Amino acid sequence: MSLVPREVMDAVQRARRVVLFAHVYPDGDVLGSQLGLGLALRAGGRTVTFACAHPVPDPFHFLPGAADVQQWKAGRNGFDLVVALDCPDPGRLGGLLEGARGPDAQVLNIDHHGDNRRYGDVNWVDTRAAATGEMVHDLIEAAGLPLTADVAVNLYTAIVTDTGSFRYSNTTSKTFRVAARLVEAGVDPAHVATTVYETRQLGGLRLLGQVLQGVETDADGTIAWLVIDRALASSPDLPEAEEFVNYPRSVRTAKVAVLFRELPDAVKVSLRAKGEVDVARIAARLGGGGHPNAAGLILPGSLADAKAVVLGAVREALAARR
Amino acid sequence: MSLVPREVMDAVQRARRVVLFAHVYPDGDVLGSQLGLGLALRAGGRTVTFACAHPVPDPFHFLPGAADVQQWKAGRNGFDLVVALDCPDPGRLGGLLEGARGPDAQVLNIDHHGDNRRYGDVNWVDTRAAATGEMVHDLIEAAGLPLTADVAVNLYTAIVTDTGSFRYSNTTSKTFRVAARLVEAGVDPAHVATTVYETRQLGGLRLLGQVLQGVETDADGTIAWLVIDRALASSPDLPEAEEFVNYPRSVRTAKVAVLFRELPDAVKVSLRAKGEVDVARIAARLGGGGHPNAAGLILPGSLADAKAVVLGAVREALAARR
Repeated sequence: MSLVPREVMDAVQRARRVVLFAHVYPDGDVLGSQLGLGLALRAGGRTVTFACAHPVPDPFHFLPGAADVQQWKAGRNGFDLVVALDCPDPGRLGGLLEGARGPDAQVLNIDHHGDNRRYGDVNWVDTRAAATGEMVHDLIEAAGLPLTADVAVNLYTAIVTDTGSFRYSNTTSKTFRVAARLVEAGVDPAHVATTVYETRQLGGLRLLGQVLQGVETDADGTIAWLVIDRALASSPDLPEAEEFVNYPRSVRTAKVAVLFRELPDAVKVSLRAKGEVDVARIAARLGGGGHPNAAGLILPGSLADAKAVVLGAVREALAARR
Repeated sequence: MSLVPREVMDAVQRARRVVLFAHVYPDGDVLGSQLGLGLALRAGGRTVTFACAHPVPDPFHFLPGAADVQQWKAGRNGFDLVVALDCPDPGRLGGLLEGARGPDAQVLNIDHHGDNRRYGDVNWVDTRAAATGEMVHDLIEAAGLPLTADVAVNLYTAIVTDTGSFRYSNTTSKTFRVAARLVEAGVDPAHVATTVYETRQLGGLRLLGQVLQGVETDADGTIAWLVIDRALASSPDLPEAEEFVNYPRSVRTAKVAVLFRELPDAVKVSLRAKGEVDVARIAARLGGGGHPNAAGLILPGSLADAKAVVLGAVREALAARR
């Protein structure tokens, strides 16, 4: 608990009108952190506003407070504290930060990404935290804000989604202790898991089957990848595709797994490693970012180009390691 | 810690020559519990023997002590303590118990299944425990046995596999506190998850794709099932099929999920529920057993017969609930 910097606690305790921002394409960690901290602040008597440039995706509508997240095209002022969560690069806030900065507004940047650009007036970056939600838990405890059941469900979802249900290398004993505390505060772990992970349609499951039949590896099996081409990507049956990268990852010999998802004029690429290669560095070189074992990027151009560039970069990184 | 019955601690503390039994078709919980308790007893100076009627499956060869598990066709004597773990029915020990019982051998039955038949001289059944491995952790702590890293990896694997990586409804705050303790004792959670879950072959992943294309539900989507027919089941590419039941389970509308796996003269059936139907009762009526949300059975006869019988029984249970 003592790890929360004094200036972070001060910023939160002094604030009266707070806006909390999620990054574009919001995921479980950013939404859970944003809503968890915001609901705790609201329960602690503050006026709280939630904003994001993109809508809350379907699987996260169940999060307490999700319906309160406003979709903004630009920032607004009138707040004395602006909190950016889980966002290493202010550009990923989709323009919200610029409009919200001002002489009376302190910007608090809370994140667990190593490549965070420290763009806040107060910056709290802890790469040992499994999720930004884990940091928010500590902040709530340290600042004496109420850890209600609604707050806890948000923070638990943040942790579950960013650790792949406690499977990734960011999971620590601390992560489990926070999870225990959140369950004691009212979280039903099976309900969160079911809601987050068991949301498939029958057609989506059949489509997953179809996608899986196209899984490939390089000659020695160290890189495994999966492609969701435009035809599949545009199917209304396509389930949440983000987690598909876990299938090539599950190949025993794979050191790096890649998911290529074809967008209209670009390709979304998800990278996963198992500790031997730093995929955040590969992603950063190609304009993306993330963690050493989980990163992503979006490449303009064709699927064939994206495959050549990304698989080439991964091969280089694997060769450099040897 | 205080929940461990006095007579269980006494039995363990008095014992000098201990044999620990796993049930047939051993899984992560029984092996992790058996090896975890056995290695702790060995580190505490006892002479320890491990036995099972069936071999240790491939994905569990990494467990410390796994190479020490002897494959016996019948029980043997010469032990002063016989421990049966995670085994509700002595018949599932494959004849080991009968041969090991004797005037000088106390039988200790440690299990978390509600349908446990209390066949031991000392019986410790706790249905609130997520896994038998969680109970063994408490026993080791209470009895003051060494919680070495090797012991911890076994108990952690027991918990991870029986909770579906902390996703099932048996997961409690206690489960997370025990997990935290085991990580502090030396477990690398990502390494266990990778070893247990990320062991697929490329061919196996393609085969999973093929199986998934055959997923079905009943008209209103409340029962979802998957079939692995004899041709697929006999493929050397087939990955560990037990977890396949999680795919029909992941259908949003499904209240009950079923996996039918065709064996040479029988069908292995895995049942999963999401809290609304007690599948252990369905399984018990058909000669199997398990937990309210996770149960299984083996039905002699054809796949068509098994589907008719099991889906009929599930439909009845769903109708009774309304």
